Amino acid sequence: MPTFKVTLAYDGTDYVGWQRQANGLSIQAVIEHGLRELDGRDVAVAGAGRTDAGVHALGQVAAFTLHRTLSAESVARALNARLPDAIRVVSAEEAPAQFHPRFCTSTKTYRYRIWTGEVISPFEHRYAWHLRDALDVGAMSAAARLVEGRHDFAAFQATGSDVATTVRHILVSRISECGSRIADCGFGGDSAVHDPSAISPQSGLLVYEVTGDGFLRHMVRTLVGTLVEIGRGRQPVEWIGRLLLMGDRTLAGPTAPAAGLFLVRVEYASALAAGS
Amino acid sequence: MPTFKVTLAYDGTDYVGWQRQANGLSIQAVIEHGLRELDGRDVAVAGAGRTDAGVHALGQVAAFTLHRTLSAESVARALNARLPDAIRVVSAEEAPAQFHPRFCTSTKTYRYRIWTGEVISPFEHRYAWHLRDALDVGAMSAAARLVEGRHDFAAFQATGSDVATTVRHILVSRISECGSRIADCGFGGDSAVHDPSAISPQSGLLVYEVTGDGFLRHMVRTLVGTLVEIGRGRQPVEWIGRLLLMGDRTLAGPTAPAAGLFLVRVEYASALAAGS
Repeated sequence: MPTFKVTLAYDGTDYVGWQRQANGLSIQAVIEHGLRELDGRDVAVAGAGRTDAGVHALGQVAAFTLHRTLSAESVARALNARLPDAIRVVSAEEAPAQFHPRFCTSTKTYRYRIWTGEVISPFEHRYAWHLRDALDVGAMSAAARLVEGRHDFAAFQATGSDVATTVRHILVSRISECGSRIADCGFGGDSAVHDPSAISPQSGLLVYEVTGDGFLRHMVRTLVGTLVEIGRGRQPVEWIGRLLLMGDRTLAGPTAPAAGLFLVRVEYASALAAGS
Repeated sequence: MPTFKVTLAYDGTDYVGWQRQANGLSIQAVIEHGLRELDGRDVAVAGAGRTDAGVHALGQVAAFTLHRTLSAESVARALNARLPDAIRVVSAEEAPAQFHPRFCTSTKTYRYRIWTGEVISPFEHRYAWHLRDALDVGAMSAAARLVEGRHDFAAFQATGSDVATTVRHILVSRISECGSRIADCGFGGDSAVHDPSAISPQSGLLVYEVTGDGFLRHMVRTLVGTLVEIGRGRQPVEWIGRLLLMGDRTLAGPTAPAAGLFLVRVEYASALAAGS
């Protein structure tokens, strides 16, 4: 009964999110369906991050245990043959039986893409938030940095959430403009999907990247909505610090749309990532 | 009655092609529908290139004449407000009444994208041909160069075509690997959509770019199918020269899938491109 840890990339546009739901097709359900074909019985799949409807992944991590004895390479190939093009197994490896992709997590990294300018590329509307406004990138960058460290993110979670603690440790929180050396603007590579200047001279692609030990529901999207309010000049840079102190969701910026968000990678403490 | 020349970008995945057809929704029909709303009467739209079903555009050119007096900027904005996200007006300018985007053409440039490696990115399957084979890029490059110049492309047109002449002048025909300085790998920028090495170490993105004074139906896709046969080592580099001399479509390579093809730009002799 080998346990496998797989890394997945998916286009979340047409799915209700990672987690199984009554009202539509989830990534988890599609993978479990493929594994049932492969293993001849029901297989439960656990994921590292419960991405919402329309959110994408470059490096989601999932785990499952099969009855059949197969190599990791065979599992990846056989599962890809059974999945739609929008969901791909990028890599697979054997893992210890106790490996759980969510509870063993060390850090997660998310990326959020914002397309600015009058016209958005037709190849981008599923993968970015389109804003016509000119944004003050310097102010957004300064505000993004204020999120780094250990803070109570109660102001940045979906209303109605019920978690033991809203304290999280953010290691990296930064905004970059596509084309700058530090921006990883594309879908996994250090390059843009569509050079914005090819669409119009005033177009640009902003990328927000955040790494932390955990994230509350809608936390990245609420941080982005808040940074955009600052970028528009409606609030000062220091506002984000006050929101962290006050912990009131109703005072923070709006939740940015799902389409711009990517789960980029999930990292594990070396002892728990064993198996390869 | 101003005439407008517009540059369009579109994701052709969900359309039956540029040209109006009985069996489904065409790009042309969608634009004509938007213009009818805008002008209050039927408006005929002419396009520079009749892209097939599933083929994309970064710089298609179209023209139409309106009864309403509007600035080019207003036409672009009003039309974008009426078009689906998959079709965008990138720019608009006034043009002489006699301007016809197809007959006044000077050169057209197409790009074809090939993703190699075991797994294709879920963000690429609509925009590239996925080949698992290792390809001999050097042989493909050498063969691509043999197409440059004035030749009879009878072997590279869709069967059943009926055109006055199958002679075309190809100015540039080259293969590049994404990441090399000359490769324009993305959707308009000089950058890749998804760094293939992020998917798997042996993945790669090949880009074929071809500029000519005109193209026969399926010509670019048949050239690509032929170059891939050479890249796979099934035929020698010189084969492409023999095909040009023999002019027999049944001897050339298969027609490559539509998804990898982009109409990149259409250029006009300066006298005919007037208006801006």
